[in-house]
Amino acid sequence: MLENADGYIIDLDGTVYRGRQAIDGAAEAIEAIRLKKKKVVFLSNRGNYSRKMCQMKLKAMGIEASEREIVLTSTVTAEYLKRTDPLCKAWLLGDEGLREEFLSHGVGLADRPEEANWLVITLFEKLTYADLNSAFRAVRHGAKIIATNEDKTFPGDDGDFIDVAGMIGAIVHATGESVSVVIGKPSTFMSDAALAAMDLSAERCLIIGDSLASDIALGKRSGIRTALVLSGSTSREQAEAATERPDFIWESLLDLRSILAEEEMDCQLSSPS
Amino acid sequence: MLENADGYIIDLDGTVYRGRQAIDGAAEAIEAIRLKKKKVVFLSNRGNYSRKMCQMKLKAMGIEASEREIVLTSTVTAEYLKRTDPLCKAWLLGDEGLREEFLSHGVGLADRPEEANWLVITLFEKLTYADLNSAFRAVRHGAKIIATNEDKTFPGDDGDFIDVAGMIGAIVHATGESVSVVIGKPSTFMSDAALAAMDLSAERCLIIGDSLASDIALGKRSGIRTALVLSGSTSREQAEAATERPDFIWESLLDLRSILAEEEMDCQLSSPS
Repeated sequence: MLENADGYIIDLDGTVYRGRQAIDGAAEAIEAIRLKKKKVVFLSNRGNYSRKMCQMKLKAMGIEASEREIVLTSTVTAEYLKRTDPLCKAWLLGDEGLREEFLSHGVGLADRPEEANWLVITLFEKLTYADLNSAFRAVRHGAKIIATNEDKTFPGDDGDFIDVAGMIGAIVHATGESVSVVIGKPSTFMSDAALAAMDLSAERCLIIGDSLASDIALGKRSGIRTALVLSGSTSREQAEAATERPDFIWESLLDLRSILAEEEMDCQLSSPS
Repeated sequence: MLENADGYIIDLDGTVYRGRQAIDGAAEAIEAIRLKKKKVVFLSNRGNYSRKMCQMKLKAMGIEASEREIVLTSTVTAEYLKRTDPLCKAWLLGDEGLREEFLSHGVGLADRPEEANWLVITLFEKLTYADLNSAFRAVRHGAKIIATNEDKTFPGDDGDFIDVAGMIGAIVHATGESVSVVIGKPSTFMSDAALAAMDLSAERCLIIGDSLASDIALGKRSGIRTALVLSGSTSREQAEAATERPDFIWESLLDLRSILAEEEMDCQLSSPS
């Protein structure tokens, strides 16, 4: 059923956890993948976390992951600017994790918004009006806009929360400028980074996530098989009505764990004793 | 030159003051209008001030104004909802002044964003992410959006600041919903309120402000003569290139004061001694 799946690309919010709460079966499913000696990459549109922060969050849920196995939009955005505009000066509108990734990649940061040639927008849970105003001034003085992602909402502890689209909308609406680059899923910047981290080709991987618009759409664009989990933002009705149908629809990662356990049993039964 | 101007409708930000700084000549011009026994209304798109707050700010600059002489979008928005949807429950995304006006007009306020049938958006200089999120949830649960105004920027103490368009953009972009009603200039809700406060017809008034898109456009729509001051957001080049040319272009309210003083002299010279 999952034959030739040597690499598992797994979304985080709504797939592995919701807010501070691990989703049932996530840790066990990942353990099962590792027991089969398959590769894993956690691929998230979160741009306000650094890899280190994400690693700690996963560890607290009983999931071990190396930095190489975590691919966030904060990371990929920093890599993108370092590669395409190595002398740039960026102004950041986002939480501390974004800054950590920019510092660790050695991307230049502007001292004042007026000096920036890029405004980088991500989710900003500590946002204030003063932050919005600095970002506004950066763009009014000529900074181009790059967004880690453009998700509208993410599932949190007590319901859905406003995501990066809110921060983007504020700046775009008030300046009249548009976003030049979006890094996050479903952009293939993200699948490229995930496949590179695993050193596997698309057809040997499976992408698992809770969002039709980001996870499933990315799989379809990149030629990666797709599994939608219903533990996040998508209902079964929405999944079945989708024009781009996922290859698998699972209640949660618990289903993956069961499938892997069955495969293991079949394998043991069919192998000569 | 200003004959038959019995009512002066005067914008605030960029016309009377910029941030906490009074603009030269503003207090004297208003004094001169009062000496001629003409009527004055201060008409501002500010929705985050209450009339009381505005009265105190003007007083600190040596300008006396009654509550009736101050027409803000916070006031006019509260009046609009009270008149058109008397049993409504509003959720407010804006500074304290908006709440003051809603309370003084007896407009119902929702206890939780999910219960609101209107989300009211204005400038919010104390904005946090949590505030954005509550507003987002109000709209996701069916609240319609009303905005006090949709200005993109206002002139402050150290440059231009992001205005209501930023707050609107955040919610509209993240929810995919649009704004149902905009109260502020150039909407004629504002000229209607100003003319009612003075009890004068449009042709007997002059509207003075620093914005082509809001003050001058409102005058043209309402049949009120217009004077653009260059003390705010518009340069002389922009003023002269405008498709809707103002009737007068002045450096600041200082020019109005000189014109009124000259009229006074002409009047004294021509009257029999």
